[in-house]
Amino acid sequence: MLRTHTCGELRPLHTGQSVTLCGWVQRTREMGGLTFIDLRDRYGITQLVFNMEKNPGLCAKARELGREYVISASGIVAERSNKNLKIPTGEIEILVSELTVLNPSRVPPFTIEDNSDGGEELRMKYRYLDLRRNPNRKNLEFRHKMAIQARNYLNSLNFIEIETPYLINSTPEGARDFVVPSRMNPGDFYALPQSPQTFKQLLMVAGFDRYYQLVKCFRDEDLRADRQPEFTQIDCEMSFVTEEDILTIFEGLAKHMFKSILNLEIPDFPRMEYNDAMRLYGSDKPDIRFGMTFTEITSHVRGKGFKVFDDAELVAGFCAEGCSGYSRKQLDELTEWVKRPQVGASGLIYMKYNPDGIVKTSVDKFFTTDELKNLINVFQAKPGDLVLILAGKCQHTQEALGALRLEMGRRLNLMDPFNFKPLWITGFPLLEWDDETNRYYAKHHPFTSPKAEDIPLLDTNPGVVRANAYDMVINGVEIGGGSIRIHNKELQKKMLNVLGFTDKLAQEQFGFLMNAFEYGAPPHGGIAFGFDRWCTVFSGGESIRDFIAFPKNNSGRDVMIDSPAPITEAQLKELNIRLV
Amino acid sequence: MLRTHTCGELRPLHTGQSVTLCGWVQRTREMGGLTFIDLRDRYGITQLVFNMEKNPGLCAKARELGREYVISASGIVAERSNKNLKIPTGEIEILVSELTVLNPSRVPPFTIEDNSDGGEELRMKYRYLDLRRNPNRKNLEFRHKMAIQARNYLNSLNFIEIETPYLINSTPEGARDFVVPSRMNPGDFYALPQSPQTFKQLLMVAGFDRYYQLVKCFRDEDLRADRQPEFTQIDCEMSFVTEEDILTIFEGLAKHMFKSILNLEIPDFPRMEYNDAMRLYGSDKPDIRFGMTFTEITSHVRGKGFKVFDDAELVAGFCAEGCSGYSRKQLDELTEWVKRPQVGASGLIYMKYNPDGIVKTSVDKFFTTDELKNLINVFQAKPGDLVLILAGKCQHTQEALGALRLEMGRRLNLMDPFNFKPLWITGFPLLEWDDETNRYYAKHHPFTSPKAEDIPLLDTNPGVVRANAYDMVINGVEIGGGSIRIHNKELQKKMLNVLGFTDKLAQEQFGFLMNAFEYGAPPHGGIAFGFDRWCTVFSGGESIRDFIAFPKNNSGRDVMIDSPAPITEAQLKELNIRLV
Repeated sequence: MLRTHTCGELRPLHTGQSVTLCGWVQRTREMGGLTFIDLRDRYGITQLVFNMEKNPGLCAKARELGREYVISASGIVAERSNKNLKIPTGEIEILVSELTVLNPSRVPPFTIEDNSDGGEELRMKYRYLDLRRNPNRKNLEFRHKMAIQARNYLNSLNFIEIETPYLINSTPEGARDFVVPSRMNPGDFYALPQSPQTFKQLLMVAGFDRYYQLVKCFRDEDLRADRQPEFTQIDCEMSFVTEEDILTIFEGLAKHMFKSILNLEIPDFPRMEYNDAMRLYGSDKPDIRFGMTFTEITSHVRGKGFKVFDDAELVAGFCAEGCSGYSRKQLDELTEWVKRPQVGASGLIYMKYNPDGIVKTSVDKFFTTDELKNLINVFQAKPGDLVLILAGKCQHTQEALGALRLEMGRRLNLMDPFNFKPLWITGFPLLEWDDETNRYYAKHHPFTSPKAEDIPLLDTNPGVVRANAYDMVINGVEIGGGSIRIHNKELQKKMLNVLGFTDKLAQEQFGFLMNAFEYGAPPHGGIAFGFDRWCTVFSGGESIRDFIAFPKNNSGRDVMIDSPAPITEAQLKELNIRLV
Repeated sequence: MLRTHTCGELRPLHTGQSVTLCGWVQRTREMGGLTFIDLRDRYGITQLVFNMEKNPGLCAKARELGREYVISASGIVAERSNKNLKIPTGEIEILVSELTVLNPSRVPPFTIEDNSDGGEELRMKYRYLDLRRNPNRKNLEFRHKMAIQARNYLNSLNFIEIETPYLINSTPEGARDFVVPSRMNPGDFYALPQSPQTFKQLLMVAGFDRYYQLVKCFRDEDLRADRQPEFTQIDCEMSFVTEEDILTIFEGLAKHMFKSILNLEIPDFPRMEYNDAMRLYGSDKPDIRFGMTFTEITSHVRGKGFKVFDDAELVAGFCAEGCSGYSRKQLDELTEWVKRPQVGASGLIYMKYNPDGIVKTSVDKFFTTDELKNLINVFQAKPGDLVLILAGKCQHTQEALGALRLEMGRRLNLMDPFNFKPLWITGFPLLEWDDETNRYYAKHHPFTSPKAEDIPLLDTNPGVVRANAYDMVINGVEIGGGSIRIHNKELQKKMLNVLGFTDKLAQEQFGFLMNAFEYGAPPHGGIAFGFDRWCTVFSGGESIRDFIAFPKNNSGRDVMIDSPAPITEAQLKELNIRLV
């Protein structure tokens, strides 16, 4: 080794020892005849001292070192007179007797500090420098620990990690695939997996009853904030289990992670039906760190001559505690906020319950004072509270109100990222109708089983069929989701029919899976966790990019290596394709 | 859970307990009024008993179960009178009182036994059934354990596992890339990584001084036996190390694997220079489980009038102990064997040293009896031995002789797969000349550093420059290989120049890496292990396919899911490509 110790391990007990450290020059300071260098590596920072009087040549050399030079320094460990107790190595320093420049550095394009002066674009281009910064380093270390603990838990329960292939087939269901032209099979393409879904089910058919994999998945989607074309899942599947078993085992995983990573004991997760989540929070991933659940007032407000209410399928709102003092300006701001296309409400109705007991609303003229008081009571508002109300089509209004609720949560500082409130959402609908394409889509995926008692409804009213599906949600973020799968060929075929597949197409696309169901497929189910997102939520972070070593930007580009890029004509020719 | 226990865990101490098992029907037997079913799951086999007299309905139902039906059976654990001590559950059986068919099975296309009657093709098509067979199940379990132990070792030494991207850029060096058209960047392509080489080096520049990753790699090569288009590496890199440090740390990994997986204590690995490996074994991955090293006799046999020897750059051979009795037929067979195109020798010369002391050779007429005796002595042959000799161009003769040596090792049963003889090969040449393209190629890869003292030779005689490169070899199989990398921009540029890159092309392809070297790149080096192959060698197996859950065939096809396959016109259009 070029070093005897790291920059994070020397303590007063090492005083007097000869050591050699290697690392990066973080900072150089001159004080009188002394030069101090903060030498940094992954493990910490150690102070090097050079004495101009005792060794002028060496000290002069030290003074010439620039930021981020890589050096090796040998010397004696000495206890510092002026201790820095903020860092673990702050009680010692190295009296350097030998200094080697292992590699010089140009001046970095931004400062390598916790708070860098570099913009996003620049830091991504020089990601290898950005990753030297403590917050990024810690994020990747955090991710590593998360992976270790997830594996520990699953290994201890007899799960076996099995690698599934990355070169598979494109399927028309779900998101858009990345494809890979096959040179050896001209005209044919592989696809990169959006998830190992069918393979893990085949592993259940193969008898591996407890499978998991930390695995990259790929989706060629238009990237929104916090989506990446490649992302990592903790993908899990079990045989001979019920939904209850899956919830128990993987609530266990989450609790293990909370305990081993964050040292938090989390009580049993509450469970909420999908319908209740929509009704009370306007979201299938409710943030239950704070209340402000919805109250429906449709029947209370109809027939009072207010057209917005009269025409609405749903009128509902929530009570924002202590906000009756909101100014006209603040309320206008909120109104504009809900009218943005991302939320899409047509307007916002408010009711202020002032501390003096007077109720002032934006719909005063349609209601008597008593009626307003009555409404206030329906919302269980107290003097000083503000009630916010939306009206319109049912699901749309729920979702808009859900967005408004989160906005109020942010404004009222109710979303402490370290106050973890996980829960399960269950009882999802099996299908989702799409007006545009005029067909049903699988809410989870086409392999999710309907609840046994709802199977007859597949023929008569598919839209109300409930699925054996569940999501784990933490602080408003869907961390994982899964389902008990179909393991019967006929039911799988029926499901694909409901999704618009002809028998022929179903056989072409998923024949291998349906055939497998005919050879002793066990009842099975599973779950997949978004690992990048889980790391982000657990560390109180905001963007999954901060937990990915080399993320892509919103155009799917890696600006550091400038990828993607053109390939040669010869490559195209070998692959039997050409550009349009 | 649908079961209380697995089929592998019940013992006499459970006698009297009510249990429920789930699994697959392995075998049904009728004996008098009793029906026995061997119920199988991943953990073992448990015997179920049905009594026609006591419960004729249930027993009749049991008799109708076919092979591979998935059932659930409840009953009481009973100690068997007729114990089967060959399996851990053989002392008990279940007196079944309740039986549920969870899923019937068609008759499987081959038997689910240790030795199946199914051919390769059929077993691959029904891989989910093939994987039910014990040998395959054990292989994947073995692989899982290998992964756990590799991670344990590396984690304990402060290595951090970091995921590098799968969507990167195509580079002209090395093997052929799989590429992925980018929809969002028309005309541009990603490539799937052949290894995370440049990214792990950038992680060193980023200061992560100990990195590893179990990672899929991709090569679009024409598949020979035991090559797969996607394969897994244990990819490792370290900063501030010398070659010696890497060998020590990763010999430690191998010893840890030997101990933890095979319970073997392996002494320190011998090290062999590349030149010696070629000279003595005719291979850069010598199998040192047995001797038969080569002796060069060029100077001894020249000028005797035998044209083959006189024209040869190298005449060398080895002594096969106790083989002087080889018949004419056997020797002809060996001669044909070395003349096959895969070996490519022009002929084989033999010298029999018979037990009676008489030497008989295929070149008697060119040598006196004394000369022959003398040659025999050079080979240190004993009466009863057979000396086999090849002649021709140096490297080609070494390699052919190496192949013949392995063939003799096989014939003489010297290759016990469980006799593990690992070693390091060091001192590889940096470059390899290719007559066809008339240029040098990197023997390892373009990022491998030359030995410091050989750097001046890059300008004058690149072919003799030695690299700081090393391979770990076990029983004739290269398990891993690596090098100390270049960390200096100018040297990297020179290396690329020697490989035929113009400065412009070098900058285009590897500019991001060379730029990174200018911002404080530490000295670094690493190694990558072929994980599939390591699993195969460690378990005494022969094909890496047996250690991959869903391997591809020699045409790169997955015959189970029938991949690759055509994609739709709409997909092609979105990707801005079309088929030629």
